[in-house]
Amino acid sequence: MSVLVLGHKNPDTDSIVSAISYAHVLNQRGIQATAVAQGTPAPETEFVLNKFNLKAPEVVTSVASKELYLVDYSDLAQAPADLNDAKILGIVDHHKLGDVTTDTPLECWIQPYGCSNTIIKMVADYYNVTIPADIAGAMLCAILSDTVLFKSPTCTKFDKKAAEELAKIANVSDLEALGMEMFKAKSNLNASPRDLIFRDFKDFDMGGKKIGIGQLELISLSMVTPELKESLKKELADVKAEGRHSAVLVLTDIMKEGSELLVVSDEEDVIINALGTQKSDNMWMPGVMSRKKQVVPPLQSAFKA
Amino acid sequence: MSVLVLGHKNPDTDSIVSAISYAHVLNQRGIQATAVAQGTPAPETEFVLNKFNLKAPEVVTSVASKELYLVDYSDLAQAPADLNDAKILGIVDHHKLGDVTTDTPLECWIQPYGCSNTIIKMVADYYNVTIPADIAGAMLCAILSDTVLFKSPTCTKFDKKAAEELAKIANVSDLEALGMEMFKAKSNLNASPRDLIFRDFKDFDMGGKKIGIGQLELISLSMVTPELKESLKKELADVKAEGRHSAVLVLTDIMKEGSELLVVSDEEDVIINALGTQKSDNMWMPGVMSRKKQVVPPLQSAFKA
Repeated sequence: MSVLVLGHKNPDTDSIVSAISYAHVLNQRGIQATAVAQGTPAPETEFVLNKFNLKAPEVVTSVASKELYLVDYSDLAQAPADLNDAKILGIVDHHKLGDVTTDTPLECWIQPYGCSNTIIKMVADYYNVTIPADIAGAMLCAILSDTVLFKSPTCTKFDKKAAEELAKIANVSDLEALGMEMFKAKSNLNASPRDLIFRDFKDFDMGGKKIGIGQLELISLSMVTPELKESLKKELADVKAEGRHSAVLVLTDIMKEGSELLVVSDEEDVIINALGTQKSDNMWMPGVMSRKKQVVPPLQSAFKA
Repeated sequence: MSVLVLGHKNPDTDSIVSAISYAHVLNQRGIQATAVAQGTPAPETEFVLNKFNLKAPEVVTSVASKELYLVDYSDLAQAPADLNDAKILGIVDHHKLGDVTTDTPLECWIQPYGCSNTIIKMVADYYNVTIPADIAGAMLCAILSDTVLFKSPTCTKFDKKAAEELAKIANVSDLEALGMEMFKAKSNLNASPRDLIFRDFKDFDMGGKKIGIGQLELISLSMVTPELKESLKKELADVKAEGRHSAVLVLTDIMKEGSELLVVSDEEDVIINALGTQKSDNMWMPGVMSRKKQVVPPLQSAFKA
């Protein structure tokens, strides 16, 4: 039976491409593996898959009695509900260490790099696995996306090196142009407020409180009209009401290199203070590009039990 | 400030040597690191440190506000009580994934190999770090110990390869002879029953039940006299009474390649059945050499919530 390679809920480009690229690496290592996903591709990911002629992984929401590799997460909240009935063989991730545990030894490649695909390139190198051009192109896009064209504080020298090597394999000479084309596709706001909030959304357990954080990365915040912002706030209140302590949306301007905060919470002041901004209609956070590195850790600290 | 590299409670040779060898690797990578331990060396480890002129790491029981690398574990039960007040920068381990979590991204090298030092050799190779002869000798001993001279089912081709390369660096030609010398030192039974039980003892949370499992690896089980066995059983009852659901001692005969089970538990039958033996005065488990691979997983399954 083929083992499954599965990214997190509300999959982003790194999550979907990691499933595809890691399944390739595992297959080359002699482990029969199939890429799957917990959802369909968002606009950015669709662009990447089209660009490099790759198919979207099959959507899977139950993993009972399956053998699994997790890519791009290690939190139970981001896994299918029946993860405990599956056997986890390995994890590739670049986030904080979550609450997934196992009964048997496994293989974890977890590094504080900007992108899971940088780590997958490292595993491929370790096992002398060759990466085909189409998968290399998608991996390159995942790195450009996660590191926001190398501008995010999460970006490391390992990400840059992997991106350069993957660009060569994929025959991409202008990384900047590819990245902008991709972020243009990502900046697509033709969707319902709910879909926009959940496009890249993660729930976290912070000191026993369920805190959902979405992020929209845009070429320019000016794309968000006052009307759209009002609708997003209203929808955020509904998202919060669905059993969450807080619902947060981070609107990132990738050219201005900063983010605006939208928040509905039982403890709004705690969140606003933790993120170093002030209560207003336009809560701007200069330099904030990374949910993982600049939003989640201060909130974790603020809500630590 | 120097970061600490810390193994698990009741440290065995792999745990102590991992702290020493990983601190070396980190220092060579430019990260100022100091090896520490949660206890003093057991007889086997003392033999290894003496043999290769290494000092026992300083004993540390509190890690509040320290920066830490964990080696050879990822379970809170095996960490200092104030681990939550420390910052974990990385983990090297070869066990099941435990319940340690972090607030920030970190570096985990976790592989289903026979020994943490095999993984540390891999990290050293990845970063082009040279290992000095004395540390290489101790790492070799850790591999020989954890894999019981390559006879344990936990042993992989990666362990054998690392051991061969380390033997060359350490100028050791007869691995078998070194291993037997080490296991002779380990078979030292001149200690109190309590000390023998806790020499290599780990507490596990299994479906909410605290289950402590010790292991004594001996050149021959005939060394355990009926009187000693009686004292061990009596002491095991005290260990169980200290807030545990079960206290287990696995007496391994490394030459006969099997183990005898001693157990005091609220659910003795569940444990005896899970380990595939029958209730008697001499509960022999043929082929059982590895707590990690042959004892913990069946008990985890049996007690799964």
